[in-house]
Amino acid sequence: MAAARSARHSRPDHADELSAMTYPLIDAGRLWDRLMELAQIGALPHGGVDRQALTPGELDAWRLVIGWARAAGLEPSTDPVGNLFLTLPGADRSLPPVLAGSHLDTQPTGGKFDGAAGVLTALEAAVTLAASGLSRARDLTVVAWLNEEGSRFAPGMMGSEAFAGGRTLDAIRARTDPAGISVGTDLDRLHATFPDLPRRPLGFPLGAYVELHIEQGPILEAEGKVIGIVTGMQGKKTFQITITGAEGHAGTLAMAERHDALAAFSRMAVELYETVGGHDPVIKFTIGRLRVEPNAPSVIPGKVVFSIDLRHPENTVLDLLAERIRAICAAAAGPCEVVADLLADAPSNSFSPALMDRIGAAADRHGFPSMPILSFAGHDARHMEKLAPSAMIFIPCRDGVSHAESEWAEPAHVAAGAQALADVLAELLDAVPGIPFPEGGPR
Amino acid sequence: MAAARSARHSRPDHADELSAMTYPLIDAGRLWDRLMELAQIGALPHGGVDRQALTPGELDAWRLVIGWARAAGLEPSTDPVGNLFLTLPGADRSLPPVLAGSHLDTQPTGGKFDGAAGVLTALEAAVTLAASGLSRARDLTVVAWLNEEGSRFAPGMMGSEAFAGGRTLDAIRARTDPAGISVGTDLDRLHATFPDLPRRPLGFPLGAYVELHIEQGPILEAEGKVIGIVTGMQGKKTFQITITGAEGHAGTLAMAERHDALAAFSRMAVELYETVGGHDPVIKFTIGRLRVEPNAPSVIPGKVVFSIDLRHPENTVLDLLAERIRAICAAAAGPCEVVADLLADAPSNSFSPALMDRIGAAADRHGFPSMPILSFAGHDARHMEKLAPSAMIFIPCRDGVSHAESEWAEPAHVAAGAQALADVLAELLDAVPGIPFPEGGPR
Repeated sequence: MAAARSARHSRPDHADELSAMTYPLIDAGRLWDRLMELAQIGALPHGGVDRQALTPGELDAWRLVIGWARAAGLEPSTDPVGNLFLTLPGADRSLPPVLAGSHLDTQPTGGKFDGAAGVLTALEAAVTLAASGLSRARDLTVVAWLNEEGSRFAPGMMGSEAFAGGRTLDAIRARTDPAGISVGTDLDRLHATFPDLPRRPLGFPLGAYVELHIEQGPILEAEGKVIGIVTGMQGKKTFQITITGAEGHAGTLAMAERHDALAAFSRMAVELYETVGGHDPVIKFTIGRLRVEPNAPSVIPGKVVFSIDLRHPENTVLDLLAERIRAICAAAAGPCEVVADLLADAPSNSFSPALMDRIGAAADRHGFPSMPILSFAGHDARHMEKLAPSAMIFIPCRDGVSHAESEWAEPAHVAAGAQALADVLAELLDAVPGIPFPEGGPR
Repeated sequence: MAAARSARHSRPDHADELSAMTYPLIDAGRLWDRLMELAQIGALPHGGVDRQALTPGELDAWRLVIGWARAAGLEPSTDPVGNLFLTLPGADRSLPPVLAGSHLDTQPTGGKFDGAAGVLTALEAAVTLAASGLSRARDLTVVAWLNEEGSRFAPGMMGSEAFAGGRTLDAIRARTDPAGISVGTDLDRLHATFPDLPRRPLGFPLGAYVELHIEQGPILEAEGKVIGIVTGMQGKKTFQITITGAEGHAGTLAMAERHDALAAFSRMAVELYETVGGHDPVIKFTIGRLRVEPNAPSVIPGKVVFSIDLRHPENTVLDLLAERIRAICAAAAGPCEVVADLLADAPSNSFSPALMDRIGAAADRHGFPSMPILSFAGHDARHMEKLAPSAMIFIPCRDGVSHAESEWAEPAHVAAGAQALADVLAELLDAVPGIPFPEGGPR
């Protein structure tokens, strides 16, 4: 907050009146209050948030955000896959819009900032630009993508991937949560809950995409930087491994005769943590979800299904370790059978250099310390980058913690990120004279 | 079936007319048909049964069994903990009754025989004795104990343990299933569903207890025997182990900085399977249930809770290995915290020699090959043995498999077991002249 306030307070003393006028200043207090109000929806006892995709909580979040958008003159709309759009109209509505945003869903024990900060800073930028009186050539569309987290319905980033044509609507509608409820059922409920929202087609031309997010790592904090200019995203592969053994009675079947799927899992897991998880200091290897069948204390487990989340900045390392995962699972299965399914394969990517330059210039303009940084987490920007020049702005989070109730970002850092985002968006909308659109627009 | 039929058919050719008359022959066809009809309640696609304690399926099973009992002149009743009694009245109702039975609940993917065979063979014996016209001094009470399996509500054998005074009704009512529903809530529903059943007090004096069960092991089959005269039950300890780490983002937190509860579990489990599970050829070590929190693919697990089921015929070995389990869990926890709770501790026991003799004599009488055998599974008879002379009859099950859909017992073996049970019960009811009650009755 301090950073944004000081910029506003110092305006009259500055020589660059023009610059101060053409980059309108966001309202850091309003933004913070809205972030805290949104975090009440799905609030958990230890400060976190449980607002998973398409739950009643996410619908409540839509209601709140749509209310704020309408009050500022933005036009809400949705699409067949349940993405939410809030559009500040520009002068020429035939031009591809600039998109900015993130997601409103959280992990089951998520925090207040992951996703929410990206949507609300984009909304703050749009509200600020709407009130500024500056002429804007293009539409600015704030977006909240469907199901980025993938915790209730796997895989994540459903809305942005469908928007970019990476998955069909039918395939997404058929996915089910652990209770057997399908995305399709809940999407129909979502659309029925907001019958007055115009429905846009799935996927439309973009001018550019910018997403702000907490870093979800400790680097900015350790380096004393406030703005991370994201260079790209590490690659990620996800697997589902299914071990099939045979159920039996815990009190009678001799140890030597068992086909215990959980015993097989344990052997695999120890070897995977050591060999794959210990490959180099940059590798990230996680078994986050595991299901045992029939999961009864006196029954030898007949089946274990578990997830693997593997990430690395180098695609060759990912490919190598994927082969190693298959080999370890096969070797450690013992008397059980094992099947390893590759669920998602997202190679590492690079963001638009022209947009990275603009983020750096915005940080410099306001005196926010910045640095280039690689994203170790996956974000919806991964899919937008295939459609149009895209970029991400990171802000620090305390101790690098996220996907946890203790996730925290400083108000001053949220405000700084929002200001840098607003600056870049103002330029992209042609609200700042003399700065051309990067890289020729949509591709 | 063949065994019982041949006994019936050969009756006119035998010299021992009196013996054939005083040990009435059960109806093997009726018994088998009822077993198959009961197995339709909660039937699974691969031949198994899911009829967990206090579910609507178990209530349907009550309805079916009560109908059969009433048609034969038996008196149904229940007690505060939801045990079901079906009583064939004797001449002197002040004498402690003889109890026989088992349980109607199953594992989530259980079979047709575990529990059901014990209840329906006891019912067949009672129905046969009711129709025989023999005078009976004592009540014969068929029992179906509440929640033997412990799969929905832990621990198992709730009904028999409460009957024997081992747990209070309040403690049992407070237990909850994974969905948070308490035993008390479902018990109230059970009693409301059967409002016309007389309610007996919890626990009453017993004359004797006899339980038939499938072996749940391969020994009888391997030895070519049809009747197992159970000498005793191996001891059992159950644990709940809780590992607490810290949640974090799967894509950002460095491997070295993680407090991954599932990684800690894997290290523990491999060591436990090797050291405890490999202690000797008789030990049974099972991790049957495991829960991961938050169990989302891209979140490092912050918590793992798992069960241990440990069984051995020697109590000193059980005590030694319990200490070893605690030591291994502590040593393998790494950066996580671990708590090991001992949930249940049932030492090994021995059954009534007098009743074992009668079972052996009954097997010889009908030409069923028999042998003494140790029970490696736990059964409700464990708790009855504290109240009165108790015994168990085992019959073979295919490949020793149980707690699985493929569980199977041959019709001829079910019939043989029912006949041996009916013989022993006939003697205990004083329906067979000249055979005194064992060991002076209740203690």
